[in-house]
Amino acid sequence: MLTFDIPPLDYRLMPEIKAKIDNKTKPLGSLGRLEEIALKVGLIQGTLVPRLSRPVILVFAGDHGIVEEGVSPFPQAVTQQMVQNFLAGGAGINVFARQNGIDLRIVDSGVNHDFDPHPALVNAKVGLGTRNFLTGPAMTEEQCRQAMTKGAELVRAEIQAGSTVLGFGEMGIGNTSAASLLMSVLCELPLEQCIGRGAGHDEAGLTRKLETLQQANDFHACSSEDPLHVLATLGGFEIAMMAGAMLAAAEKKVLLLIDGFIATSALLVASRIAPAVLDYCIFSHSSDEAGHALMLRELDAEPLLSLGLRLGEGTGAALAYPLVKAAVNFLNEMASFESASVSRKVTT
Amino acid sequence: MLTFDIPPLDYRLMPEIKAKIDNKTKPLGSLGRLEEIALKVGLIQGTLVPRLSRPVILVFAGDHGIVEEGVSPFPQAVTQQMVQNFLAGGAGINVFARQNGIDLRIVDSGVNHDFDPHPALVNAKVGLGTRNFLTGPAMTEEQCRQAMTKGAELVRAEIQAGSTVLGFGEMGIGNTSAASLLMSVLCELPLEQCIGRGAGHDEAGLTRKLETLQQANDFHACSSEDPLHVLATLGGFEIAMMAGAMLAAAEKKVLLLIDGFIATSALLVASRIAPAVLDYCIFSHSSDEAGHALMLRELDAEPLLSLGLRLGEGTGAALAYPLVKAAVNFLNEMASFESASVSRKVTT
Repeated sequence: MLTFDIPPLDYRLMPEIKAKIDNKTKPLGSLGRLEEIALKVGLIQGTLVPRLSRPVILVFAGDHGIVEEGVSPFPQAVTQQMVQNFLAGGAGINVFARQNGIDLRIVDSGVNHDFDPHPALVNAKVGLGTRNFLTGPAMTEEQCRQAMTKGAELVRAEIQAGSTVLGFGEMGIGNTSAASLLMSVLCELPLEQCIGRGAGHDEAGLTRKLETLQQANDFHACSSEDPLHVLATLGGFEIAMMAGAMLAAAEKKVLLLIDGFIATSALLVASRIAPAVLDYCIFSHSSDEAGHALMLRELDAEPLLSLGLRLGEGTGAALAYPLVKAAVNFLNEMASFESASVSRKVTT
Repeated sequence: MLTFDIPPLDYRLMPEIKAKIDNKTKPLGSLGRLEEIALKVGLIQGTLVPRLSRPVILVFAGDHGIVEEGVSPFPQAVTQQMVQNFLAGGAGINVFARQNGIDLRIVDSGVNHDFDPHPALVNAKVGLGTRNFLTGPAMTEEQCRQAMTKGAELVRAEIQAGSTVLGFGEMGIGNTSAASLLMSVLCELPLEQCIGRGAGHDEAGLTRKLETLQQANDFHACSSEDPLHVLATLGGFEIAMMAGAMLAAAEKKVLLLIDGFIATSALLVASRIAPAVLDYCIFSHSSDEAGHALMLRELDAEPLLSLGLRLGEGTGAALAYPLVKAAVNFLNEMASFESASVSRKVTT
């Protein structure tokens, strides 16, 4: 069975960590959001000297049956072409992960293509793309469980190897459609508020996408009460695998860096299975994909960056990572008022 | 004479750089603000393959006569204590610059203390702090010119040594007071909209600060038409030196990373002397110091980060630098649709 035993965040060290932050040579609170992050990472790791070790971003790739309805302006082949691009090191996520010292794993969760083996590619294929959810569930409940279990396994291996921070990204033509439906059902929001232009729809394309997805939504009439059923019916292999991976990471008290719209939709599903997963997350950015800002609000999440990104792949997580590192570094490396002999504020 | 011959940005390469960006393997525009930055750096350097080499942040430190009126909750000694902290490597800016591979120069522009020589300290002292501008000008016009000239010299030496990107930060107890006055006069805005809590005023302290600064403002009744006179009357040695440094950097077509409230006030002065300086700037963050958001609007500036920082020292510039680097790196390193054999969007 799929059970995740995620401990809620332990706040016992909060006064000590806060005191350490407040003793740094800076005006009280003057590092803003970085202070929140330093506190969070300290609480997650249960220490005043947290470490970010062996950062890894997992990029889950999968194909979607729904693309045959024209919900994406890009052909399905782009999923496998982009996987090849990841393996060759030429995509956005490669550039940003390389720059920031983050290892990458490219995970074939269910791309409609058989790849040759490659050292950077993890074969975790559940199928050659999901079924078209316009006429039936995207995957069987068994496939959904398989994807989640595999995601959890992959993450446990990274943690076993020493990772204390994991980022989550994805690639999959059509996956904004799946993510929008998950959001609409689980948050009980009208679909119009949950969809956007994806990889680049024009107005007509957006209208077609909305109509198609509305039809799928009406056909299945899923209940928000059963997140696993919703995930199997309307999700994707990469989304299910990511949800399982996130739950397993939180179970092991690892810091999760959440990327954009699709990664957040996977977390939304995960949070309906085990709400405590949210205690371990840092939201890297607010995407330009319509719907993401609202989804973040539903999760009570305040993202670090707002740069108009809508690329996915984990790029937002990779770009936000230096800020997370800066938070941990100031906590560990900055002098205190005492150690640097700096005078404190005069209290009047 | 202080003349700066800043060439306005040359837009001739814009179509080529834009085409290069649009050919990268990503949906059009999906790297948001990073695309703007890549374009800007390309235009500044006049090339499709820009480089960020030898990044340096200059931290200008100075003392302010006005602190004897109680405008800061910290004693003046903190300026020199923090300079010692910078030299020992224990301040926020040390941590972030180290993390992000940025060299630091600590510049004594006019601290009220005689420092022993130190390899990381640049002695550019104009005086032992400015005069109290409540009763007379903060500095003589000659001192102001001297500070600006020295700032320009320092920057030219860095550029000579190979820097193509320079960040600007500061330290100086009382310098938010000077910055607020510069803003109020030069932007012709009521002082209430230009002041904030600085290093940590309570409500009573803020009221006292406003009253004191209003008195100084009324006493001098400076005209916004003469920025050099305003700078000499109400500025600080570190602010004047920074303004000169910024102008010299733009003159040499170097990329400028602007930090928070005080650094932006120096740029405000610089932009009234030579408006083209703005073409070379990236605004690193929107500070939590009240007034900064409005000052950024006056400069038509959109900062990269908004993290509630209000530490100064160049910390915002250091924290934003990885994003600037990411912009340049994607332009140089990402594959194109052709090179990676990725299909383009289907046009309908």
